[in-house]
Amino acid sequence: MTLAPAHVAGVGMVRFGKYPADVTLEHLAVGAARRALGDAGAPRTAVDGLYVGHVFGGPVAGQRIAARLGIDGLPVSNHENYCASGATALREAWVALAAGLHDVVLVVGVEKMTDRVAGGVRPDPGDLDAAVGYVMAAGHAMSARRYMADHGATREQVAAVAVKNHAHSVHNPYAQYQRPITLEQVLGARPIAEPLGLLDCSPISDGAAAVLLAGPAGLRRLGIDDPVPRVLGVGLVSGSVQSGTGDLNAEEVSRRAGAEAWKLSGVGPEDLDLVEMHDCFTIAEIVRLEGLGLLPHGGGAALTAEGHTTLGGRLPVNPSGGLLSRGHPVGATGAAQVCELTWQLRGVAGGRQVDGARTGLAYCKGGTVNGTDGGSVTTVVMAR
Amino acid sequence: MTLAPAHVAGVGMVRFGKYPADVTLEHLAVGAARRALGDAGAPRTAVDGLYVGHVFGGPVAGQRIAARLGIDGLPVSNHENYCASGATALREAWVALAAGLHDVVLVVGVEKMTDRVAGGVRPDPGDLDAAVGYVMAAGHAMSARRYMADHGATREQVAAVAVKNHAHSVHNPYAQYQRPITLEQVLGARPIAEPLGLLDCSPISDGAAAVLLAGPAGLRRLGIDDPVPRVLGVGLVSGSVQSGTGDLNAEEVSRRAGAEAWKLSGVGPEDLDLVEMHDCFTIAEIVRLEGLGLLPHGGGAALTAEGHTTLGGRLPVNPSGGLLSRGHPVGATGAAQVCELTWQLRGVAGGRQVDGARTGLAYCKGGTVNGTDGGSVTTVVMAR
Repeated sequence: MTLAPAHVAGVGMVRFGKYPADVTLEHLAVGAARRALGDAGAPRTAVDGLYVGHVFGGPVAGQRIAARLGIDGLPVSNHENYCASGATALREAWVALAAGLHDVVLVVGVEKMTDRVAGGVRPDPGDLDAAVGYVMAAGHAMSARRYMADHGATREQVAAVAVKNHAHSVHNPYAQYQRPITLEQVLGARPIAEPLGLLDCSPISDGAAAVLLAGPAGLRRLGIDDPVPRVLGVGLVSGSVQSGTGDLNAEEVSRRAGAEAWKLSGVGPEDLDLVEMHDCFTIAEIVRLEGLGLLPHGGGAALTAEGHTTLGGRLPVNPSGGLLSRGHPVGATGAAQVCELTWQLRGVAGGRQVDGARTGLAYCKGGTVNGTDGGSVTTVVMAR
Repeated sequence: MTLAPAHVAGVGMVRFGKYPADVTLEHLAVGAARRALGDAGAPRTAVDGLYVGHVFGGPVAGQRIAARLGIDGLPVSNHENYCASGATALREAWVALAAGLHDVVLVVGVEKMTDRVAGGVRPDPGDLDAAVGYVMAAGHAMSARRYMADHGATREQVAAVAVKNHAHSVHNPYAQYQRPITLEQVLGARPIAEPLGLLDCSPISDGAAAVLLAGPAGLRRLGIDDPVPRVLGVGLVSGSVQSGTGDLNAEEVSRRAGAEAWKLSGVGPEDLDLVEMHDCFTIAEIVRLEGLGLLPHGGGAALTAEGHTTLGGRLPVNPSGGLLSRGHPVGATGAAQVCELTWQLRGVAGGRQVDGARTGLAYCKGGTVNGTDGGSVTTVVMAR
């Protein structure tokens, strides 16, 4: 079952990175929102509703953003699904357009992490996994070790994800890191949870990204009569990773997320020209692409090292630089992925353009539930 | 413009109050959710999606609830609009049904406040109003003083709200307080922000409420073929209270919330048989009813003291006891209001039943923005 697509009238970002304390969450969000409105040539009065994704912004962050953006009075809602928060806000916005509740909606994903979680995201006091040391990095380190042992993959193949994504974001002016790194740098970086080192991990980041979505009447209101990229569907599944097969890296939640994405969008995996993938850790990019069925189970690391997912390869993944190199202000990431897909589908991504991109997928994963790296997975399928 | 109504297939609550530390947010939420499913005669497998409203539950609280409820795998989203969080979750669920995305959805509002905000809700560090002492109680105290001065209302008339709502919840088994209080007790209570005393203020509470909503296909799936109460529309407006007229108590945000509610539901203020009103403070009930146009501006306090809004009066308000007496676990309140409206529209509210209730309104207000008691207002219009 598919709903009506949402048209992307405009997108905007502020560069991801580390901002000083006097640059607030509201500054970042309003900066991105103004760019999205400007990109669409839309006055702020054209907006019917504001959907904000964030994790650490505190209560009614969206209302504070609306007040400072000068769109006080609208319906404003705040959406939290950990690292999938921005994409979850986008999902609710897409549904509101499809229902006919609104014609033009603004989605903002934002996070000011350096103020709130300076030393890293702290686990919840009630998180028993974290209490025994099974924090996010440890979980992905286990995944990497298991992957290498089960499939004969090498440390170098896993590290190739970081090299690739940093190479891509050399061409992304909104990326936190815009310099290439070498395989030797990844292998020689400070260990975090072996075999993973610092450059296998996405950084702490501040940033914001905004997407202006419109239905058919909304496009007319905005005076947009040329074709614009469309969000065909936004999937959301939750649950634990484990497939019940005993294989830590056969991600059931990714398999289901893929199935839901194809169902909601009418697009199949074979139609994709590029993917923005939640590479919070190098190994995660590989395992999730395999879970979606976009790479063969156990074969993703070797294919990555061979350039299959590099710009110019068969299926470019994370031309933006991904979380590893564009940065990962958690609530902003889902919206930033949609900005990137939009630029790619418009053909204006410059040095990181995927030639002839017509269809793309963005994948986010948020949270950890029940002793597994589960939580929620969002999938956004877009087409030009 | 109206969307398709959502049918209330089942509702459930746990009693609001103060629970010990080993009764977790998940326990409360699952307790309410199981009762809503049981009320509908629905297996948990009938649910297509979970919408959770909470403020203090921490990241991915909804996913933790889903896992413990045994509905892991579904789309789960977390919605935050401060004290309007539960109603905001309900709004997104209603929109998802109207869009045809889902057929049966579960809405849970929940808060475990005693663990997180034992001494009261602390303002955000960046809240400049709070820094100069303009906290929530102070704002409402100013509102009460201004109201009394402008309209010749008495302290006793304002206090009558608390007496009425406590009298109502004597008959509500889910209320935090189930004993009547006297006018003398309200007037003699410990001062909080004069003229308001302790009994003019809603308490710190733990609790959860759940609502199972269905579209037409969902009702068939659940085997429900008799008429059930319907959610006709859920409005959401944000913004500052101030009307620009210089009258602190002429609530622009409430006026707009009312206008949106009538537009979305096709119901007018004259059609209402009862109201569940966000009486976080006694004076707030009066001012908000006036803002909606349900009581004359400046005349609400006298009418309240005369019994206009008491059970048996012209327009019963807060038969449940409201926030003052049912309690106010902030994320749960919007869902609890819908539980109450449902029981009233079914005619099963026992000693607090509003005779012949056919149409009801629930109003929530969340947050403070821009130096005014603004934030977001939700309105839910229901009919049997």
